[in-house]
Amino acid sequence: MDSRAGLAATPGALPYYVAFSQLLGLTVVAMTGAWLGLYRGGIAWEGALQFNVHPLSMVIGLIFLQGDALLVYRVFRNETKRTTKVLHGLLHVFALVIALVGVVAVFDYHRKKGYADLYSLHSWCGLLVLVLYFVQWLVGLSFFLFPGASFSLRSRYRPQHVFFGAAIFLLSVGTALLGLKEALLFKLGAKYSTFEAEGVLANVLGLLLVGFGVTVLYILTRSDWKRPPQAEEQALSMDFKTLTEGDSPGSQ
Amino acid sequence: MDSRAGLAATPGALPYYVAFSQLLGLTVVAMTGAWLGLYRGGIAWEGALQFNVHPLSMVIGLIFLQGDALLVYRVFRNETKRTTKVLHGLLHVFALVIALVGVVAVFDYHRKKGYADLYSLHSWCGLLVLVLYFVQWLVGLSFFLFPGASFSLRSRYRPQHVFFGAAIFLLSVGTALLGLKEALLFKLGAKYSTFEAEGVLANVLGLLLVGFGVTVLYILTRSDWKRPPQAEEQALSMDFKTLTEGDSPGSQ
Repeated sequence: MDSRAGLAATPGALPYYVAFSQLLGLTVVAMTGAWLGLYRGGIAWEGALQFNVHPLSMVIGLIFLQGDALLVYRVFRNETKRTTKVLHGLLHVFALVIALVGVVAVFDYHRKKGYADLYSLHSWCGLLVLVLYFVQWLVGLSFFLFPGASFSLRSRYRPQHVFFGAAIFLLSVGTALLGLKEALLFKLGAKYSTFEAEGVLANVLGLLLVGFGVTVLYILTRSDWKRPPQAEEQALSMDFKTLTEGDSPGSQ
Repeated sequence: MDSRAGLAATPGALPYYVAFSQLLGLTVVAMTGAWLGLYRGGIAWEGALQFNVHPLSMVIGLIFLQGDALLVYRVFRNETKRTTKVLHGLLHVFALVIALVGVVAVFDYHRKKGYADLYSLHSWCGLLVLVLYFVQWLVGLSFFLFPGASFSLRSRYRPQHVFFGAAIFLLSVGTALLGLKEALLFKLGAKYSTFEAEGVLANVLGLLLVGFGVTVLYILTRSDWKRPPQAEEQALSMDFKTLTEGDSPGSQ
């Protein structure tokens, strides 16, 4: 490719796919807000509306921000590796913090109402996502952001980090679908089958969630869209596998 | 690698991962059967038990067989490309036929009971999966199994086929989770929150479905486990991109 020296050319179609993913992601967030506003009375931390903090926070944190964190390496192709890494890590921190607000909201709501916790498939999947997300973030931080890990160790861990990052993101999308379905069936019950407006809106929201997940996965996995190694990384990565100590290229 | 000529060495850990995926897949099928047998009265084509044909058929067809069809190229590494392709296509045909039996079962059951069709997120996702699955199978057949498509056309379509194959499989797993959740909430209702045995069993089944999906995806995407080109394919694929007519390598 012509990207080995100097600025890497951005693949022609990539910006359109990224723009489409952002349009989908923002639509999902807006539509979650619209659903809660139109059919669930809006959002508040106190009282019965506290529950509604949960879906909105989870969609912003574990769907939109987590998805965007995965795309950082595709979007920022000419910034230094360190800048891109910090942005990737920060987006994941924001995602985790916002998700934790959503988790606290639902546990607090359950406690006040005397509802049982963690009995449903949605909650089991959600707990799994949170634990895996936190572990992945910690391991990612210690391997890639701290200078301790050797170059060869990083190279061996990187594909695992990417795979599990994508898997956790997809599991987040699946968990959101389960939560949406649960919220619909609890409230609508048999009315769901009469094509109530809320049910149709929520189904469309579900399909858009799937669309966002698929689009992010497509951008992430298309091999000719991967971030090309930059000049200084390229020079350093030439058969340095035996150099098992020292900092990774590009993180000067 | 040392696999370019003659028999390709199977990567050391691959058989264990494949065995684990099969163990998970068979457990998912057995557990779906156990759930229907223990808590839903078993399976029959006539009467109220006709509904139960639906979850079992979909799990056998669109989860287990579809997942195994994706793994064919990883498992059969030394057979000719044509043999592997035919097996891949056949497994997808079996999957589709069994899934269609499951779809007919639920529509027939709904019709007899006077229930509405296609109102839920599960059914919308399911319809999407079926349409995409059928289109993917037809396009795959015309590109890869018939001799008409040129080598360069196949090379350009292959990554798209693999991506959408994985995406459709994952959407099938997500749709199964939604269906499971729907079946639980319809029957258990508020009892779901009291950790009823059926609810716990179904939650475990849901997590095993997720586990099967993740394991298949891991085997499929690990780059050093990809099927190496065989000797005759290797010889033919050397910069033959300009040769836009003719049969693909390996399908002699």
